Amino acid sequence: MTAPAPLAVSIGDPAGIGPEVISAAWDRREAEGLPAFFAVGDRRAIAAVWSGPIITLATPGEAAAAFAHGLPLVQVDDPGDIVPGDPNLAGARCALDSLEIAVGLTRNGVAGGIVTGPVSKAQLYSIGFNYPGQTEFVAERCGIAASNAVMMLAGPSLRTVPITVHTPLADVPRLLTSELIIAKARVTARALARDFGIAAPRLVIAGLNPHAGESGTLGREELDIIRPAIEVLLAEGVDVRGPLAADTMFHAEARQHYDAALCMYHDQALIPLKTLHFDDGVNVTLGLPVVRTSPDHGTAFGIAGRGQANPRAMIEAIRMAGACVARRTAAA
Amino acid sequence: MTAPAPLAVSIGDPAGIGPEVISAAWDRREAEGLPAFFAVGDRRAIAAVWSGPIITLATPGEAAAAFAHGLPLVQVDDPGDIVPGDPNLAGARCALDSLEIAVGLTRNGVAGGIVTGPVSKAQLYSIGFNYPGQTEFVAERCGIAASNAVMMLAGPSLRTVPITVHTPLADVPRLLTSELIIAKARVTARALARDFGIAAPRLVIAGLNPHAGESGTLGREELDIIRPAIEVLLAEGVDVRGPLAADTMFHAEARQHYDAALCMYHDQALIPLKTLHFDDGVNVTLGLPVVRTSPDHGTAFGIAGRGQANPRAMIEAIRMAGACVARRTAAA
Repeated sequence: MTAPAPLAVSIGDPAGIGPEVISAAWDRREAEGLPAFFAVGDRRAIAAVWSGPIITLATPGEAAAAFAHGLPLVQVDDPGDIVPGDPNLAGARCALDSLEIAVGLTRNGVAGGIVTGPVSKAQLYSIGFNYPGQTEFVAERCGIAASNAVMMLAGPSLRTVPITVHTPLADVPRLLTSELIIAKARVTARALARDFGIAAPRLVIAGLNPHAGESGTLGREELDIIRPAIEVLLAEGVDVRGPLAADTMFHAEARQHYDAALCMYHDQALIPLKTLHFDDGVNVTLGLPVVRTSPDHGTAFGIAGRGQANPRAMIEAIRMAGACVARRTAAA
Repeated sequence: MTAPAPLAVSIGDPAGIGPEVISAAWDRREAEGLPAFFAVGDRRAIAAVWSGPIITLATPGEAAAAFAHGLPLVQVDDPGDIVPGDPNLAGARCALDSLEIAVGLTRNGVAGGIVTGPVSKAQLYSIGFNYPGQTEFVAERCGIAASNAVMMLAGPSLRTVPITVHTPLADVPRLLTSELIIAKARVTARALARDFGIAAPRLVIAGLNPHAGESGTLGREELDIIRPAIEVLLAEGVDVRGPLAADTMFHAEARQHYDAALCMYHDQALIPLKTLHFDDGVNVTLGLPVVRTSPDHGTAFGIAGRGQANPRAMIEAIRMAGACVARRTAAA
């Protein structure tokens, strides 16, 4: 069995904290036991915030050998001068190029998986990017319908999956369907087994309403939408419980009894995750032919280039991607 | 200055865990430094789950002197045989009597404040109780409109106030108004100063939508309802920030910067509170002429009488009520 190929790490917006958290992860590669990776982005943007060795690769295949000696880099088109904290359109182009190349190298096997640095959606939209986010872009490049690419947030003590994501709260009840819950639960259960080594994943599903609707007195979605979905999943052999009252399912003792919690909307999934794992949360895209993770934070333009950014989430995103790739490689 | 009167603790449903957590709090009164309190409820229901000394009071005024020697009890009408974990209508009547008498004794000054044990709403409804919960009952008995009695959940590291409470999630956007936010924020700010000794309370207000609506692209309630409320509050001199993205406002560092978080709906307030403080969360009713707290858990019929109930929340509810009463007494 050969070692998995190094991970491709797109730097995200070069004026954000991506360059510094990626280089900080390389600095700590031995202490953290990180798998080999290479950056895809701009050398000068990294050098502006880091004085360590950058090894610009002539071909991406040299990354594994270079990793011990410096941060391997696949250079994209030069975006010109990048000022940390001051995003511009050339930087947005650099972010998109980095993402596109990192995905391509992963698709053709040169990279073992992809870790995406934080981008500014507003900046990307201004250069014509027309996806809700990087997840949908990666899914499309992999030939997967965006609806089958499932976002999971993972920290050391909790994994959550939002069933609806970036939508106004008022639209959530209308968008919630049994089919959507079933589809995301299936992808989640399969991915926990395939990528996370959990042979018999235990899922729980949150209710939408307070106290999971109290038998219909505080809302009927639990009875009309969520329970029927659970019955279908149980009939398929998925180990799933719910709908659970959302407020009592995330404390320490409750978290011992499941591997992932499916939540009905963005904040129901993100509030507990970020309350517990603000600094070390990882965003994983499940259901793709490639492994893709991302630190669960934004570009943080406000602190970029000041040495204040915490690289913990990037380190955990790299570690998790490496572990998922290793499991797929071992199973192949 | 005389010492505050003892607290009245209603036992809640006698078949629930109220009797055992109240008696466990008395057992730990010295180690925990608890203020004097007396139970209002049924002697046999307590004796069924606790072998310590119960001092049935001839008059409630004897409670302070009795507290050192046993758990002082104001006996309500005998509900007959109560089996832990097996609620019945006589027990519901006992719960309601306990609540009514505890409120009355607090209103007339015999008790310094009230701590309410957990009740079963389903059981109370079946004997004709027609309030959404104990909070509304206490408010009415105090002559306060239920809308001015504000529920705050408080743990050692977080306080949250839900603006809308027991309502289906689909109704939340319609029920949310600037007036409601302003009214609850005013009560909260005043209560933090009066009852919690926070001279200049710092409030934060959550957005309703993911990322607080992202400037209107993910929902307009932040622009149309929440911001106007914040402007009114700021003009009144309330120290308030928001709307904040709900997922990034509850981690440890963020919690350093405010004294209470106003949340738009039940689970937005309760998820972070119970994730962090499942065992020690206290429900406080703000805006009443009397101090009222409650442990933030239910009757737990499933474990009642088995010695498994954690008395931590009841202990914290008694401690918090005592501290609030002491501040009001000192200020009077």
